[in-house]
Amino acid sequence: MVQKKRKLGRGVAVVGAGLSKFGAYPKGVRGHDLFVEAYNELRGSVDKGFAPKDIDAFYLGDISSDLFERQVHVAPTAAGRIGLVPIPTVRFEDACAASGVAFREGVIAIASGIYDIVLVGGIEKMTNLDTAHVTEVLASALDPDTEIPSGETFPGIYATIATAHMAKYGTTEEDFMRLGIKNHHNGGLNPKAHFDVSIPEFMKRRAASAAKKGLPEPHWADEMDFLHDPAQNPIIGWPMRLFDCSTICDGASAVLLVAEDIAKNFTDKPIYVIGTGQASDYFLAEREDMTSIKAAKLAAKQAYEMAGISPQDIKLAEVHDCFTIAEILAMEDLGLYKPGEAVKAIREGENRLDGKLPINMDGGLKSKGHPIGASGVGMIVEIFKQMREEAGPRQVKKKDIDLGLMHNVGAHGSTVVVNIFQRR
Amino acid sequence: MVQKKRKLGRGVAVVGAGLSKFGAYPKGVRGHDLFVEAYNELRGSVDKGFAPKDIDAFYLGDISSDLFERQVHVAPTAAGRIGLVPIPTVRFEDACAASGVAFREGVIAIASGIYDIVLVGGIEKMTNLDTAHVTEVLASALDPDTEIPSGETFPGIYATIATAHMAKYGTTEEDFMRLGIKNHHNGGLNPKAHFDVSIPEFMKRRAASAAKKGLPEPHWADEMDFLHDPAQNPIIGWPMRLFDCSTICDGASAVLLVAEDIAKNFTDKPIYVIGTGQASDYFLAEREDMTSIKAAKLAAKQAYEMAGISPQDIKLAEVHDCFTIAEILAMEDLGLYKPGEAVKAIREGENRLDGKLPINMDGGLKSKGHPIGASGVGMIVEIFKQMREEAGPRQVKKKDIDLGLMHNVGAHGSTVVVNIFQRR
Repeated sequence: MVQKKRKLGRGVAVVGAGLSKFGAYPKGVRGHDLFVEAYNELRGSVDKGFAPKDIDAFYLGDISSDLFERQVHVAPTAAGRIGLVPIPTVRFEDACAASGVAFREGVIAIASGIYDIVLVGGIEKMTNLDTAHVTEVLASALDPDTEIPSGETFPGIYATIATAHMAKYGTTEEDFMRLGIKNHHNGGLNPKAHFDVSIPEFMKRRAASAAKKGLPEPHWADEMDFLHDPAQNPIIGWPMRLFDCSTICDGASAVLLVAEDIAKNFTDKPIYVIGTGQASDYFLAEREDMTSIKAAKLAAKQAYEMAGISPQDIKLAEVHDCFTIAEILAMEDLGLYKPGEAVKAIREGENRLDGKLPINMDGGLKSKGHPIGASGVGMIVEIFKQMREEAGPRQVKKKDIDLGLMHNVGAHGSTVVVNIFQRR
Repeated sequence: MVQKKRKLGRGVAVVGAGLSKFGAYPKGVRGHDLFVEAYNELRGSVDKGFAPKDIDAFYLGDISSDLFERQVHVAPTAAGRIGLVPIPTVRFEDACAASGVAFREGVIAIASGIYDIVLVGGIEKMTNLDTAHVTEVLASALDPDTEIPSGETFPGIYATIATAHMAKYGTTEEDFMRLGIKNHHNGGLNPKAHFDVSIPEFMKRRAASAAKKGLPEPHWADEMDFLHDPAQNPIIGWPMRLFDCSTICDGASAVLLVAEDIAKNFTDKPIYVIGTGQASDYFLAEREDMTSIKAAKLAAKQAYEMAGISPQDIKLAEVHDCFTIAEILAMEDLGLYKPGEAVKAIREGENRLDGKLPINMDGGLKSKGHPIGASGVGMIVEIFKQMREEAGPRQVKKKDIDLGLMHNVGAHGSTVVVNIFQRR
């Protein structure tokens, strides 16, 4: 591929956003039921209101309702449940980047002139299966000729990437743990997060448990010991432990995309989409470098060029932390930090809510949860809330949050999509 | 949905097309292997040639590699096999309309200005499963709250629709059979068809079998008896018999889409996309009328309006005959014939290759085969070949074939996409 300069024929903005509560729901709850919840929050967020009948198309990301729910053709089903029939409905699958890609395609469709208003959503209902079977389903997004027959799974793949990063840059287990703590802290401030327990609350529970055992009250600063304790934080695929892995859960997400020229009819505070990029890659063994994801670099380059900005302009980001190591790769591949230097920022707390460059303000996939198809659009929901200063207790306080970025990875980087947002 | 007048910001044309041989392949052959075959035919069809590195994106339709092949994320895998990495790759799923929708989205993407050249493909590898399990997989495209739990399957659904059509319009079993004969005749002239046996060859085989049994040589005109014989043509869901059902098979399809302004760089004979429409619908029990598919009417209306033509302008069509009754619905829903009048045309042979309005020149899903994800783009491959007069022994001979239409149905019409093509 020649990296052509990409541009869109028409501007696009996000004017509404909603999320279901992420978590484990009973088997009788279906993905489209959660989508109704996300859509209802979205409806309330469009401050000047909108008529559902004006929606021109519905784009939905979903990795595998097929294997999780024995259901295909989920797009018209979900659309039917919220009264959108007979508009065109399309399901997108690009592994864990399903709804990030659906969003990009929604932007493209509005830019083409065929639609003015597109509802973009994401759904996944994973917990009908147990963890082993979920892991097997997800592993089917790996390469079918080389990786699947070798019995590869994602914890194994990302463990391999993590050890390569440790070997090359001196990244430590504690660096991964620090990321997990940051993301759990943020998720604790997010009522929609799967792990919505705040660190003070978590410490209260730990104190109670210690008192019961006659042990001294633990202090949060000692929690590294907790994370090093294999009984509390078992190794999944060294160096990735339980607290390095995103959560398997159910959830749905939704955003309303409209043409820039009509955005102010919906809200006085649209968030504009100013850049988008997407790229693909081969399986792991074919890659030149294990410590970075080439498709992420290419997608980011396209998005920055379209937006006419550089990585240093980004004020906050939602990145794809399916494992803690993946957040480090993202920070470096997106050019937010030089290769090997993300860990320095992590150690200095630079990516906390009150830091220089907040990342994964909603808790990330680690703590908000990773209902696969819902994750990409879920990140955009957070960018939208943060840039409109509607994120409640986890609101980033600095005033210059005019440029935000989302980064959504499919599989081990065989798809990556990056979208850039602006508040004007 | 308000039926707005849809238009695209930029013209789009098809400049190349290819198909794998449709049929039952061994388990070791994967969907992406068949796609390589389709792509290779496509490469040969672009008469002025093209550089694969100039392709900007790859859009792929596939209903459920998940359930058929235990594989998700098939788009970058297929792209990798033909050297297209690192371009963006996207998989679309809209039940049996998967690649018809992928094609429409490719048109939209080029119209947006973000891409100039998009490869659109379709893949399905179904025969790893036996017929009962394939039927079960396909049934998962029905409504998950009402139809799936009731044990509905597609033969049952279309049988219901067929009896409703018989009751309302007097359509007969023989009308369905006539459609099957026409489509098997056409498929017999198509070396890529699953049932690529010509009617003379079929009669030769029948004569040999009759001779062995000491019976008189059968004549083709007596074949209605053959079709009425439950031993030869068992009832699947009355009035739909074996010869009314499309075939379960494996296959792949590919077309190369480019912006109109550069089309002549690839070929002197581009086929232009001048209209596209898409709509959705609820499950069967929610519909007002069982003898027509509303989403098909809406999609067709959009496509005709965008093209600025009326149904009477269409010179040839590829329609979604998953069952013979579906071809009748298509003929009426697309406005090619008035409700209840398609059968008159069928009885008079109007839709044969030498008729007034040839339909399913390649044998249709009935005889060419219905590898689900490949079917929509497979229809476009045929339109492309016919309009360029490159369809060999099944070439439509009349000279005015300047406007063609494809109609691709997902499930029982919960998605329908229609695309209209022009030769200039």
